[in-house]
Amino acid sequence: MIKFSKMHGVGNDFILIDGHDYLGDYNALAKKICDRHFGIGADGLMISKESINADIKMIYINSDGSTGEMCGNGIRCFSKFVYKNRLVLKDEFSIETLAGIKKVKLFIEDAEVVKIKVSMGEVIDESKLIPIDYSGKTFYDKEIKILDKTFRLSFVLSGVPHAVIFLEKLDKEILLKYGPEIEKNEIFTNNTNVNFVEVIGRNQMKIDTWERGAGNTLACGTGAVACVYVANKLGFIDNEVNVSLPGGELSIILDFENNEIYMYGPASTIAEGVYNNTEG
Amino acid sequence: MIKFSKMHGVGNDFILIDGHDYLGDYNALAKKICDRHFGIGADGLMISKESINADIKMIYINSDGSTGEMCGNGIRCFSKFVYKNRLVLKDEFSIETLAGIKKVKLFIEDAEVVKIKVSMGEVIDESKLIPIDYSGKTFYDKEIKILDKTFRLSFVLSGVPHAVIFLEKLDKEILLKYGPEIEKNEIFTNNTNVNFVEVIGRNQMKIDTWERGAGNTLACGTGAVACVYVANKLGFIDNEVNVSLPGGELSIILDFENNEIYMYGPASTIAEGVYNNTEG
Repeated sequence: MIKFSKMHGVGNDFILIDGHDYLGDYNALAKKICDRHFGIGADGLMISKESINADIKMIYINSDGSTGEMCGNGIRCFSKFVYKNRLVLKDEFSIETLAGIKKVKLFIEDAEVVKIKVSMGEVIDESKLIPIDYSGKTFYDKEIKILDKTFRLSFVLSGVPHAVIFLEKLDKEILLKYGPEIEKNEIFTNNTNVNFVEVIGRNQMKIDTWERGAGNTLACGTGAVACVYVANKLGFIDNEVNVSLPGGELSIILDFENNEIYMYGPASTIAEGVYNNTEG
Repeated sequence: MIKFSKMHGVGNDFILIDGHDYLGDYNALAKKICDRHFGIGADGLMISKESINADIKMIYINSDGSTGEMCGNGIRCFSKFVYKNRLVLKDEFSIETLAGIKKVKLFIEDAEVVKIKVSMGEVIDESKLIPIDYSGKTFYDKEIKILDKTFRLSFVLSGVPHAVIFLEKLDKEILLKYGPEIEKNEIFTNNTNVNFVEVIGRNQMKIDTWERGAGNTLACGTGAVACVYVANKLGFIDNEVNVSLPGGELSIILDFENNEIYMYGPASTIAEGVYNNTEG
């Protein structure tokens, strides 16, 4: 029996366990526990461990058993989990991940964590530093023909590669038809996530994402960061933006002074209990 | 907070709750708790209630919030759940369902329920009593053309409608191409589940099912009953058969003397805990 919590951050769902409660093979456990029929079911498994360089360490494993570097929606859930389980005893702390040390701050109302702020690091746009086959300095607002349609597309790296396309209005048919084509277009040397963005105002946008390898998902944290960064660069929005995703709402703040990007968002506890790792 | 168990029967997964623990709207709860991202995630929700006519009553609700009549894999999980939670105190008991009263028997080893036997009722094959547009008495082994291919198909009702097609060898491509076409063929007046069957021997078969409204699933209990019934009728197998489904193994026994069909199969407890019904 392994104690677990199931949580979600705007529809991206995770199983969380305290590393003290299970010392076996986490990659094998993730495949079993994240299975949606034979296990509890989730997009990924996160395990808390002691850290030498930070207040706590987050191990992140995808549902297919592969180790992941970081996950914007996941780290908010992880932050709430370690605070609620008293694995950290302060409301502002640092988390060691494979993508570096991330700082988080919890917003607490009536003893409940209602919002989490995460430092998401910086966005990289220099073509020679990102997985694109392009000789220009950056790739902003360039025409690209996909099947029968010409899009204006931007490409940046916010931990993972993101293509960003602005539309007058979000359109599920466009997403489903062109998303997978753009994902695998030869110009992106390591494939790409594809974000379609509708700008609502200077501080508001809507995003629908086609995730590399995962298809149309409910919410992508690094995608929201990339879209806000690109939209600001192109002059469409200010530096504080509310983002509506199919799974919920996030806020992104571009802090140019400190060269940092902050994400604010919720994390919800769905269930807590014990997982039966001996049977089935 | 609502106490729950998550269980599965050969890959068909369910949330189970004791009706004493929650008295609200079960259909609304099913939609929330069965959601795979915002809830715990399952194919359906089952609630135990007191019964006047049987030892206990099972309420079964699909993940989309609609009430279901019966579920072969579900009732095994339900039987184990009510026994483990001491809602019934014997190992052979009756369960009231919307499809009538079903008898079950538990097989217990080392205080663990390892197998459950369920009386599945009878299979109906008279054309005028089942949802098929056909003037003959029964529909066994008839040629039917679907797209470019002619199949030999049988059609019976084992609680729900099932088309049964025997193949030399199971073939996922055939299932995915012709399954949805057969499901909606105009001869089936209420659509149909579609089972492809490979007979391995007189007491062994493999089944892959295209479920009406659900697509290719891991296991369909009423489908297994229909396939064994039809295969026996056509003389391919005896009356005791082990059935391999993508999600696991079931045994079906046709008891002609008592006009009853028995299903034997496992039920596994995946997790137990509390569901947070106030948040997210």
